[in-house]
Amino acid sequence: MSLIEAIPNVSEGRRPEVIEALAAALADSPGVDLLDASSDAAHNRTVFTLVGEGAALRTALLALYAAALERIDLRFHAGEHPRIGAVDVVPLVPLDPADMPVCISVATELGAAVAERFDIPVYLYEDAARVPDRRRLETIRRGGFEGLREKMRAKTGRPDFGPPRPHPSAGASAIGARRMLIAYNVNLKTDDLDIARQIARAVRASDGGLAAVKAIGVRTDQPDVVQVSINLVDYERTSLHQVFESVQREADRLGVGIRDSEIVGLVPAAALVSAASRQLQLAGFTMDQILECRLAR
Amino acid sequence: MSLIEAIPNVSEGRRPEVIEALAAALADSPGVDLLDASSDAAHNRTVFTLVGEGAALRTALLALYAAALERIDLRFHAGEHPRIGAVDVVPLVPLDPADMPVCISVATELGAAVAERFDIPVYLYEDAARVPDRRRLETIRRGGFEGLREKMRAKTGRPDFGPPRPHPSAGASAIGARRMLIAYNVNLKTDDLDIARQIARAVRASDGGLAAVKAIGVRTDQPDVVQVSINLVDYERTSLHQVFESVQREADRLGVGIRDSEIVGLVPAAALVSAASRQLQLAGFTMDQILECRLAR
Repeated sequence: MSLIEAIPNVSEGRRPEVIEALAAALADSPGVDLLDASSDAAHNRTVFTLVGEGAALRTALLALYAAALERIDLRFHAGEHPRIGAVDVVPLVPLDPADMPVCISVATELGAAVAERFDIPVYLYEDAARVPDRRRLETIRRGGFEGLREKMRAKTGRPDFGPPRPHPSAGASAIGARRMLIAYNVNLKTDDLDIARQIARAVRASDGGLAAVKAIGVRTDQPDVVQVSINLVDYERTSLHQVFESVQREADRLGVGIRDSEIVGLVPAAALVSAASRQLQLAGFTMDQILECRLAR
Repeated sequence: MSLIEAIPNVSEGRRPEVIEALAAALADSPGVDLLDASSDAAHNRTVFTLVGEGAALRTALLALYAAALERIDLRFHAGEHPRIGAVDVVPLVPLDPADMPVCISVATELGAAVAERFDIPVYLYEDAARVPDRRRLETIRRGGFEGLREKMRAKTGRPDFGPPRPHPSAGASAIGARRMLIAYNVNLKTDDLDIARQIARAVRASDGGLAAVKAIGVRTDQPDVVQVSINLVDYERTSLHQVFESVQREADRLGVGIRDSEIVGLVPAAALVSAASRQLQLAGFTMDQILECRLAR
C-alpha cells in the first residue's frame, strides 16, 4: 500500500462558506483522510492536507477542482501570495520516500484528467516535471494569474496538458511530486532583522550553506524577536538538528542568543527520531519501534 | 475510544508450534491488533504485545489463557526467568495516561473471568492492586511456581480471585494495570561491570536517584562493553534525556565514555519528541503535528 499525501493550495482564504464547501468535497470523497485545513486571510489562500492511496486521492482532488471551479473566479481575487490558479498548486508527497515513482504517476494522471475534464491548462513541476525548467515551482508561477495569457503565448509557456491559454476564471494549475518538506523556524533574541538575514544566507543551499535547505530572515509578531524561517526540502539529507546546530553556530558567532525553535504544520516522525537519536546517542532504532507508527500501519 | 495495550508474558519460549498457537489465539480474536511477539529461549518465555479496546482485549486474553492451559504444564517447565503461571503476568497499559481507570477495570474483570472460567487463582497488581503489598509484582512472584502451594496456605497468600491453591498445571496469574514502561539501555566503553553497577545505583530511584527509574548494571555480549539497563516506569515524570544526561554525568565522573544507547521494544512517540525538543529547543510542539500520530487516530 503506497500512502500519499496531497497538499492542494487553493486561492480562497476569506469566505468561510467557500472554504467549507471545498473541504467537504475532499472529506466526503471515499478512501481519503482530510488531516488539516489552514486558511490565511492576508494571503487569501487555503492549504489542505489529505492522505490516501493514489486512485482515491485522484478522485478526491478532481472533486476539489469541480468545487473550486464553481466558486472561485480569479478575476475577482486579491491576495498577497503569488498564484496562477483557483486550485493553484497540488504537490503529491510520498509518505515512504521509496514511493516517489507512484507520486509522479498520480500527478501525471491527475494533470491529464484536470485538463480534459475542466479545460484547465496544467503544468507538471518538481519531480513530476517533464521540462527541466519546470522543476522549480517559482518559474511556473512567475507573473501570476495576471501574466498568464501573455506567458502562454510563448512556446516555453505551453502547458503539459490542456489548452495553450488560461481558463477564464480558474487560470492554470501546477501539479507536482515532491519530497516531504518540513517548515522549521528558529527564533532569535534580537530585534535586528539583518542578523536573521545574515544567518539565513549562511545556512541556505542557494548561498553555499546546507544542502536541501531554504531560509530567509523575517520579523515576528514580537518586536524583540526576529526569525530564521527555514524549509527543509529533504530532511533525510539535511536533518533538523543539523540545521539547528548551524543556526546556533552562526548566532553564537554574531553574539545573539536563540530563544526557541518551532515546527510549523505536520512533520514525519522520522525527522524527530533523528533529533532524539542525536540527543540520546541512540543506536539501532527503527521507526517500527514507535507505538503510533505500528498502530498506523 | 480508550485504546489499551496488553503485554501478556507466557511461560513458553522454546516450542515454536506452541508459541504459534498462542499467537494465533490472540491474532484471530476480533477487534485487537497483535503488534509484537518476542520469545526468549533461555528465559523460556514469550512476551506478546497487543492493542485494542477493553472488551475486545478481554476476549482475546481469555482465548490466550484457554490456549495456554491446553499446551503449557509448569510441572515440566524450566527457564531462568521467575514465574508463577503458564500465563504468568498480564499488564494492561493505557495508551493515553488518562485511561488508567479503564485499565484497572479491565484488569479486574479479566481476573474474575480467568478465575471463574479456568479455576486459576489471580493476583491483581500495581495500579490494579487491592492490597498495598501487591503493588509490586516482585512480591507476588517471589518463590515462583514451585513455592506457590506453600505461600498460598498463609492468609497473606490468598488470591484476589479464584481458589486458594495453585492450578495443577497452570499455577497462578498476576493481572495488573500500569503505566507505559520504556526499556532503555546505555552502553559504556569499558569491561568493568562495577562501573555499570555504580552508575545504576547513582541514577535509580531506589537508591535516591531519579524518580520512576529502575536500573541495574549488566554485561553485554561484547566483552569490552558493559551496560546500564534501565526501566523508565513513568517517562512523563523522568524523561529519556534526563536519564541519559544523568548516566553521562556519572560516566564522566568515573572517566568512562558512552558508546551508545538503545531502546528495547516499543516506545510512545511522546517520549522521543521530548528528547528531540530538548535537542532543538523546540517550543509549542504538539503530538498532533506528527504525521503518523494524525494517521493513527
